[in-house]
Amino acid sequence: METVGIIGCGLVGQSWAIVFSTAGHPVRIYDNDPGKLLSGTQAILTKMVELETKGALRGTVKADKAFGLIKPAYSIQECVREAAYVQECVFEDFTLKRKVFEEAERYAPDDVMLASSTGNIFASRLSEGLGKKTRIIVAHPLNPPHLVPLVEIIPAPWTDDDVISGARRLLQSVGQEPIVAKKETAGFIICRIQHAITAECFKLIRDEVVSVADLDKLMPHGLGLRYAFLGALETSYLNANGLKHFCSLYGDSIYELQNQSGPPIKLEGATLDIIQQQIEERIPLDKIEERRKWRDERLAELFKLKHK
Amino acid sequence: METVGIIGCGLVGQSWAIVFSTAGHPVRIYDNDPGKLLSGTQAILTKMVELETKGALRGTVKADKAFGLIKPAYSIQECVREAAYVQECVFEDFTLKRKVFEEAERYAPDDVMLASSTGNIFASRLSEGLGKKTRIIVAHPLNPPHLVPLVEIIPAPWTDDDVISGARRLLQSVGQEPIVAKKETAGFIICRIQHAITAECFKLIRDEVVSVADLDKLMPHGLGLRYAFLGALETSYLNANGLKHFCSLYGDSIYELQNQSGPPIKLEGATLDIIQQQIEERIPLDKIEERRKWRDERLAELFKLKHK
Repeated sequence: METVGIIGCGLVGQSWAIVFSTAGHPVRIYDNDPGKLLSGTQAILTKMVELETKGALRGTVKADKAFGLIKPAYSIQECVREAAYVQECVFEDFTLKRKVFEEAERYAPDDVMLASSTGNIFASRLSEGLGKKTRIIVAHPLNPPHLVPLVEIIPAPWTDDDVISGARRLLQSVGQEPIVAKKETAGFIICRIQHAITAECFKLIRDEVVSVADLDKLMPHGLGLRYAFLGALETSYLNANGLKHFCSLYGDSIYELQNQSGPPIKLEGATLDIIQQQIEERIPLDKIEERRKWRDERLAELFKLKHK
Repeated sequence: METVGIIGCGLVGQSWAIVFSTAGHPVRIYDNDPGKLLSGTQAILTKMVELETKGALRGTVKADKAFGLIKPAYSIQECVREAAYVQECVFEDFTLKRKVFEEAERYAPDDVMLASSTGNIFASRLSEGLGKKTRIIVAHPLNPPHLVPLVEIIPAPWTDDDVISGARRLLQSVGQEPIVAKKETAGFIICRIQHAITAECFKLIRDEVVSVADLDKLMPHGLGLRYAFLGALETSYLNANGLKHFCSLYGDSIYELQNQSGPPIKLEGATLDIIQQQIEERIPLDKIEERRKWRDERLAELFKLKHK
């Protein structure tokens, strides 16, 4: 089993450590803050035991065994030097991430795969001019990756083919669902879909078509139930006798809806105030952490349902 | 318990009959094709027994009792004359639906609520000039309503307030999740969100950013898992410390993504060919029904999970 290096021991790094260790991979995890490395490592164990108790721990290795596979590293050098694959999970800051990659590529084996968890920085920017620039990709997860398997792999134009195929294979083998972008475009893939939805929601509130509370029922009691199992395109395919049939029925009105939707909307001002206020009435700011915990518990239940 | 009239005994009508009868409402169901009325009524029983066996039958009334509450009607008059609420579920054709409402309003009690299951015809068009025009609304479900509780209520400008509040209350009492539009706009609410997604998917395929197979993993292994429990706006709210914080971090790039997304796209031509072909390789046209059955089985499992 190849060794995996994880740089950054925050929530994302902890979750990646669960993903790889429960699949049997030795993990070396590093954080530039030794206190965070300690508390983060403890949090990994707590989480794995919790998941195991609920029957929602993935992979083939039990919590205590998996935790034994995770070893703290006290430098980037120590973290990456034996790694076949490195997952960087530091703060979303270009200068910081670039520095991490400069150091990681220096000490990693020549045939390493170096992946960033970034949701918006191109691999070409992170890798440009570096000696191992052909070994660096983006592998952007949704949070937390141990409950939400999707990972989008965004290579740079110069990334070696074997890094793309190797990362896809490795991520698949540990139970993730990698998708691969053929080119670098802003928003990658996930955010383009997610924020097309966000923007349309803002327009519906701005135009006073519906209340915030009612609009936010649309996913969890409607569309989202299907999307838990089906892709957006397949959903339409099944709503008629295939997609050509679907488009012959609804294609014109979908074109019209786009026209009606109008120019881009800025997420600010009175519309943002209204949305923030109305959600805050239901979920006060000091209850967000509790609600996230609830979300992750539901995700764990759904994970079990989908994998039984 | 108020009597409910259902006009149309196809898949949608059958599902509405399950919704109301398992909550204890007497149901009178009508179809202008007597053969379809018979086979449709039998299908209701089969479905209810199946759901009961799986532990996914909703409501408080057992399948055999609920089925006893459903009586065929052999005319629209018979269907609606004792009904407090009527749900029209005939084919998506304006002339046909208008004719149904002309007849239904003639025989229904004065204080009836008359609802259409249409996904795109305004209540104002269906009701204009009719004697009971203030009693007519759209109550558009997602299919099948007995597994997907969302219903969007779209009143006409002249709909009586007590019809809107009464329909919301009744639908809620039988376990649906009604949302109310404050005005009639094309696409209502559901289709505006659903087709913002569809359009962005077409653009991602047209621009060769990703394969169809990878793109359709995005919902069932990623965003859709969250959306099974959380609204789109709440999702963003939880991804930062509230929505204002979220917009301060990502608002500019979401605005940029909308600009980058460019003008409306027609769902036709080479892009449609590619998508149809690639989905068809996975789900041939003659396997669509089987896949729908699979979808509904998964929806029933999720329904159980969400209601336990």
